[in-house]
Amino acid sequence: MPKQILLNAFNMNCVGHINHGLWAHPRDTSHRYKELGYWTDLARTLERGLFDGLFIADILGVYDVYENSVDLTLRETIQLPVNDPLILVSAMAAATSNLGFGVTVNIAAEHPYLLARRFSTLDHLTSGRIGWNIVTGYLDSAARALGQTGLSEHDSRYDQADECMELLYKLWETSWDDDAVVLDRTERVYARPEKVRPINHHGRYYNVEGYHLSEPSRQRTPVLFQAGTSPRGKAFAARHAECTFINATDPASARAASRAIRKAVADAGRRPDDIKILVGITVVADQTMAGAEAKYADYRRYASPEAGLAHFSAGTGIDLSRLDLDTPIAQSADNGNAIQSNIQTARDTGLTKRKLLEKLSLGGRYPAIIGNGETIADELQTWIEEGEIDGFNLTRTVVPESFDDFIDVVIPVLQERGLYKTAYEKGSFRNRLFGHGDRLLAPHPAATLR
Amino acid sequence: MPKQILLNAFNMNCVGHINHGLWAHPRDTSHRYKELGYWTDLARTLERGLFDGLFIADILGVYDVYENSVDLTLRETIQLPVNDPLILVSAMAAATSNLGFGVTVNIAAEHPYLLARRFSTLDHLTSGRIGWNIVTGYLDSAARALGQTGLSEHDSRYDQADECMELLYKLWETSWDDDAVVLDRTERVYARPEKVRPINHHGRYYNVEGYHLSEPSRQRTPVLFQAGTSPRGKAFAARHAECTFINATDPASARAASRAIRKAVADAGRRPDDIKILVGITVVADQTMAGAEAKYADYRRYASPEAGLAHFSAGTGIDLSRLDLDTPIAQSADNGNAIQSNIQTARDTGLTKRKLLEKLSLGGRYPAIIGNGETIADELQTWIEEGEIDGFNLTRTVVPESFDDFIDVVIPVLQERGLYKTAYEKGSFRNRLFGHGDRLLAPHPAATLR
Repeated sequence: MPKQILLNAFNMNCVGHINHGLWAHPRDTSHRYKELGYWTDLARTLERGLFDGLFIADILGVYDVYENSVDLTLRETIQLPVNDPLILVSAMAAATSNLGFGVTVNIAAEHPYLLARRFSTLDHLTSGRIGWNIVTGYLDSAARALGQTGLSEHDSRYDQADECMELLYKLWETSWDDDAVVLDRTERVYARPEKVRPINHHGRYYNVEGYHLSEPSRQRTPVLFQAGTSPRGKAFAARHAECTFINATDPASARAASRAIRKAVADAGRRPDDIKILVGITVVADQTMAGAEAKYADYRRYASPEAGLAHFSAGTGIDLSRLDLDTPIAQSADNGNAIQSNIQTARDTGLTKRKLLEKLSLGGRYPAIIGNGETIADELQTWIEEGEIDGFNLTRTVVPESFDDFIDVVIPVLQERGLYKTAYEKGSFRNRLFGHGDRLLAPHPAATLR
Repeated sequence: MPKQILLNAFNMNCVGHINHGLWAHPRDTSHRYKELGYWTDLARTLERGLFDGLFIADILGVYDVYENSVDLTLRETIQLPVNDPLILVSAMAAATSNLGFGVTVNIAAEHPYLLARRFSTLDHLTSGRIGWNIVTGYLDSAARALGQTGLSEHDSRYDQADECMELLYKLWETSWDDDAVVLDRTERVYARPEKVRPINHHGRYYNVEGYHLSEPSRQRTPVLFQAGTSPRGKAFAARHAECTFINATDPASARAASRAIRKAVADAGRRPDDIKILVGITVVADQTMAGAEAKYADYRRYASPEAGLAHFSAGTGIDLSRLDLDTPIAQSADNGNAIQSNIQTARDTGLTKRKLLEKLSLGGRYPAIIGNGETIADELQTWIEEGEIDGFNLTRTVVPESFDDFIDVVIPVLQERGLYKTAYEKGSFRNRLFGHGDRLLAPHPAATLR
């Protein structure tokens, strides 16, 4: 059997996420993000399409680099307003049985003692369908909002994140034994005291003495997602991540990135296949090529490449409103605010604002595949095989039709080719991804603590 | 029409909450707290009974005062393990249309910038059915778990809480104007930049510069619950709270407490009726008196008065395992760990361990009313009229039957007497409680900021 494609839907608790401007399309319903029904309908849709997971991004600051202002951010609703992602999960979990959830939480924003309980609670309520996308934050506006004088130095953020993970593993994996809870009504023992112990963590960033407040959940540690792009971020991902996202422009660049990640994972003492690698993509699908082209043309009329520029400006720290069309963007990356790891690709490819605007035809920078079921399946297969990746993070265009179109047009072709499951595997999110049970295995650092 | 009784169900995301030991009853299902279905069933049950709200308690530490140990706490599952309460809400909201939710969150545990977004998200998703029970924490074990060297001094915790509220009101009430979001597809304006502004808060405890991340929700500020018992805590409640809980042993003591609260609210410049006062009660109801007595006797066989002692030990800082039966408990309150405000009632009433154990016949200290519909309605009516209170926080015994019994046996009698609604009012949680619309009104400090 050929390798099965992993598939996440990519979304965010906001209106404009990746493909900016499409909120203005007459059929788009993303402004309904404030309603529970919007999310429970989405979850049911994704389960109909046998998606492995719904991945929910998050950001704690605002995009104020472009034109040194939030005006365009507000007018085009570029990830602002943005609501809390964790709060959505229990309603969607109640509406589904198999869909996994990967939720972004910034390590700097939550005390790990409480973050541990929050994810344990979600792992209980979803019966092992929760994942965590670990981010350390990159926006000065978020740091100021959280009362810090400015963003802490990049590498020290990852040092803190490493210590945070160690502390979380202690809480999740070591405070309660598997057989601690017995619920023995006759002997009047809910939990056996000798099977439960406080952790004592005294480190550089955290001091925690206490019992994990939650009893053991199915996965204990949630499925760990991380998408480091800097050398230090990649080292963090190599050590901790079970799934990672890469932004690749074509299968060849995906292959280079994929090989580098698997080598780093191996260098960290883990198996190269202990990490799943997903590429972010946009798909415009229709039963016919002519229909797909017409749909793409229709979407383009509403997309906002300028909003895409503003998003990229925040991600790179470079105000792209000030650049002319043909100067390589990377030439402006020598100011102190530039985020070097996020402009590496721009540097490598000599990206200019003109070329970027062409890529932003749908308002977002992800590779866009426009076609019918056969041609899209061909391209996805090429990405998987030549790019040496495991699957895709499918972003949305016009909601909900872009997910419905993918399910109705593309999934059946992938299934015919044996590239996509025809039913969910049993078990937890982790077991569906890796097939080795609910818990992390050695040599992952969470497992070696046990 | 006589005054309508307000009714909250009182619960917690754990097994043993108030009436300890009843988890061992063969029909009790509270161990299912880890399943979504347990909570969505509960929410539907409460909505069937036209409950105004479900109030969810929380605690961030463990009870380790009794016998200087957590052993009994684990064996009798005395609020340990305890899962996150906020995470439950969206699933229950999706299963209901009218039920309100009052959720406990400790101010010290969450950064207000993120707490503000979390409650705004819940207010959006529930369409204005969210409330917040503000607590400042009283457990050293929680402080140690959160990396503090010990609990901060009591009054300074409330100073911090006052500043936190000011900061939250700025985010909730002032960052976005009501008409900021226009969703104008033609003009391509989701939000009007001139109607949105960052807050700039620089205080003793917090420094926050930033935009509220959420657009305005129905209530903006969630319905505010607080239950201060110390003089400083009562002053906080008088300034901020819209609902408060009192622990009263009889209607006369409720009346004294109620009058003191309304006077404090008036002294804070608000109307005496701007606060709703609820008393915590336990009810064992049956269609017949004999049936109720038999049910009570059955429950008592499983209740754990000792677990109730352990809970009270944590609440007072006094290890009751060391006391003899007849020495007044308040005599032991001169140790440095004693929580004076929580033993005031014990001091006033000359409470001994023997008398306490009698009150703990169902494992909890709330007044217990055992009877049929008529006798229970009589007692509740007496509490309301003589106690000058607004309603009740109904705690559970054996789950779910204690809520079902109350709904089937007591509610119809209250309705016949005109003391309880026969349908939900329209609108938000706040509007159902106060009838003046969705938002806080002046002179509440949240309203005067606008």
